[in-house]
Amino acid sequence: MTSTPAWIADVKFDDNGLIPAIAQDAKSGRVLMVAWMNAQSLQETVRSGNAVYWSRSRQKLWRKGEASGHTQRVHEIRLDCDADVLLLSVTQEGGIACHTGRESCFYRQLEGHGDDAQWVSTDPVLKDPDLIYK
Amino acid sequence: MTSTPAWIADVKFDDNGLIPAIAQDAKSGRVLMVAWMNAQSLQETVRSGNAVYWSRSRQKLWRKGEASGHTQRVHEIRLDCDADVLLLSVTQEGGIACHTGRESCFYRQLEGHGDDAQWVSTDPVLKDPDLIYK
Repeated sequence: MTSTPAWIADVKFDDNGLIPAIAQDAKSGRVLMVAWMNAQSLQETVRSGNAVYWSRSRQKLWRKGEASGHTQRVHEIRLDCDADVLLLSVTQEGGIACHTGRESCFYRQLEGHGDDAQWVSTDPVLKDPDLIYK
Repeated sequence: MTSTPAWIADVKFDDNGLIPAIAQDAKSGRVLMVAWMNAQSLQETVRSGNAVYWSRSRQKLWRKGEASGHTQRVHEIRLDCDADVLLLSVTQEGGIACHTGRESCFYRQLEGHGDDAQWVSTDPVLKDPDLIYK
């Protein structure tokens, strides 16, 4: 029988056993992406030092970079006051976190303040996704 | 009849009509907190220039700082590739985002790598919460 470590028990996973994890670039401070973790992926992240998420669409562990090579080396893991969000400080291999080939998934910015405001892409595609996912 | 602006229709709110919003300090880059927004709070945020969230516990609009004075001036709003997470660049009034009186809600850091790892508070309380919420 394996018992749950206390530090895992401290984390408030949701009804699906998941918690959102923010990945932030350790050097630039840029927020790169948000993904989900379950207890197993969090433990494997800590053990391996590389970010492991839970893919909700594929319903399996997602070792970030397994297909793209864009792994994330994890330097620090933080937990918020409600214990229901994780914050990872990472080094992003290849400088690309997003599946669109951009540095960050947050590449769209709201321009304007009225009903005609728009989400505008502000960040360049650094690498063609077709070349990333061969 | 009011129609939904296109930029709101672009946002993927969840089954409860909510989307998580990360507040990041515009100057330091520090991730301060994560809270929820519905369409109304997002629109009011854009209109007013101050962060307005949706309180799930109180089931009402939460104009950040209404009780504490610790408002958040919003400089930029970003949307991620899946359109299901928002990222706000803010100036945090009073330098305190967390209800515990700390700068950031992410004040606990995981120390250690094994079963005996621990969440350790690394950040000072800047102001006694009893003095913030009078």
